[in-house]
Amino acid sequence: MQALYWNGERLRLRRKYPTPRAPEHWALVRVRLAGICSTDVQILQGYMGFRGVPGHEFVGEVCEGPDELIGKRVVGEINFACGTCVTCRRGLGRHCPTRSVMGILNADGCFAEYLAVPTANLHLVPDAVADESAVFSEPLAAAFEILDQVHIQPVMEVVVFGDGKLGLLCAQVLHRAGACVSLIGKHDGKLAIVRKMGVRTILLSDWRARQADLVVEATGSAAGLSLAMETVRPRGVLVLKSTLAQQHTVSLAPLVINEVMVIGSRCGRFSPALQALARESMSVTPLISKVFPLAEGAAAVRQAARPGELKVLLRA
Amino acid sequence: MQALYWNGERLRLRRKYPTPRAPEHWALVRVRLAGICSTDVQILQGYMGFRGVPGHEFVGEVCEGPDELIGKRVVGEINFACGTCVTCRRGLGRHCPTRSVMGILNADGCFAEYLAVPTANLHLVPDAVADESAVFSEPLAAAFEILDQVHIQPVMEVVVFGDGKLGLLCAQVLHRAGACVSLIGKHDGKLAIVRKMGVRTILLSDWRARQADLVVEATGSAAGLSLAMETVRPRGVLVLKSTLAQQHTVSLAPLVINEVMVIGSRCGRFSPALQALARESMSVTPLISKVFPLAEGAAAVRQAARPGELKVLLRA
Repeated sequence: MQALYWNGERLRLRRKYPTPRAPEHWALVRVRLAGICSTDVQILQGYMGFRGVPGHEFVGEVCEGPDELIGKRVVGEINFACGTCVTCRRGLGRHCPTRSVMGILNADGCFAEYLAVPTANLHLVPDAVADESAVFSEPLAAAFEILDQVHIQPVMEVVVFGDGKLGLLCAQVLHRAGACVSLIGKHDGKLAIVRKMGVRTILLSDWRARQADLVVEATGSAAGLSLAMETVRPRGVLVLKSTLAQQHTVSLAPLVINEVMVIGSRCGRFSPALQALARESMSVTPLISKVFPLAEGAAAVRQAARPGELKVLLRA
Repeated sequence: MQALYWNGERLRLRRKYPTPRAPEHWALVRVRLAGICSTDVQILQGYMGFRGVPGHEFVGEVCEGPDELIGKRVVGEINFACGTCVTCRRGLGRHCPTRSVMGILNADGCFAEYLAVPTANLHLVPDAVADESAVFSEPLAAAFEILDQVHIQPVMEVVVFGDGKLGLLCAQVLHRAGACVSLIGKHDGKLAIVRKMGVRTILLSDWRARQADLVVEATGSAAGLSLAMETVRPRGVLVLKSTLAQQHTVSLAPLVINEVMVIGSRCGRFSPALQALARESMSVTPLISKVFPLAEGAAAVRQAARPGELKVLLRA
């Protein structure tokens, strides 16, 4: 099969990469669309020391596996858990200490024609959801993860910092949950995507310090973290969405004095994301900036790495 | 009256310091015993830029104020809130943005013969509780604050780092709440205080990395923070009890990847502390290292500042 392969130095199209096998309890998925995420860009800069086929956002069609899945459109959760350890038995498979992670850690990902996924990780895509929306299931699930972690009260004041893909999805999810959301970002064109839905948007240059009950840090920058820490009210909640590899120099004293709750937030359950897409209550396709064929993967990744770029997709 | 006065350079006994007035809704308290806390030691090193009479841990007797309080033994909460702002109306008076704080911020404290306190902040001390126990109400309330912030489940695995006064109190409170507590510290003599109650104690030099559901950082050191971050399990809770003024260099990525919840924790309600003292279910008097007369305040503070020192008290 064709696949994009990262050897630690460059990303190359391999035309005869071995098609993966689907062992028992796994399925082979023919990839239809894949999304390029900031984590992929970081991986291709050396993050996680990954070698193999990157990519973890996809929608595809099952071509090998249990009969009831054959021919079905699916999306898939990215953490491949052991299912038997203490962490898994606690229901925290996404944190299984021996997990592999699709396209990130010890498992080939979806920048390829075919992909092997444990059937337990697959979710059927409702007919009403087009491929171009379904491919957002993974990042949208990450945005919904906030609702699993924080009790959103009606008219709660929420500030989301960062108008990147994840920030735009988080703002929509929190708005839909009934919060009063302000999204702060640098690009008016991107802010406009959620402004249409009723989210208050503010250019960073116009931002005046105020306090909020819940602050979501989705800028991926140290400056964003400082701003977020200043904005959360005493006894408020700060959700960290950026997995910044670098070290920060921060004083944690304000967190203690103001008794702030800081919550690290990563992958989420797919079902809330699929339900929202099926109800058309989320606006994800305006986030697509360009679709490249798989063979032009290197160019696609270069485009995805440009500052301020929205979602670049690969069609396999 | 006699009072210890901090002018920004040194702590001096003033024999004719003006006795405070108790305006409406305030009471004048004759201090019987006061405790010296690590925060006081920091204040006398310049923290908060405080000038005045330090001290915020006391037990005393009301000598002016509402009739029903005259002659009663009391302890008092340290945050003097406005009572009318948005934060106060939310029930978060301890975080009132215009609050003064006894002996810490814009209000004289208890290292004196007399002290003025809003009556709303006072709590009657049950007869069963001796002065030497009641004087621990404030730090014990800070330990109980964890139970207001975190749902302690039966046999939850808890690790407390730091065998200082606050660490010893936190370990007891969490043990009493039904958790499986390990207290990690450097001083076997101090660990012994809670070991008698059934708390598991481990010398830091014998500590082997393992994971816990809840970790309490009460060492006040950057090394303690790193250790605490390594120890909290995925989706676990890390409570920060130390108000370290200095900056830390930390990578926050593990918090995001492991979806850790970090909770800053400061002052607490006094009623759980007084109830526990009345039931004699806490062991606080073994934490007293020495009692000095008020006139020897400077020597008392020097002793309190010694590394590893337990609670030094002042008798007014």
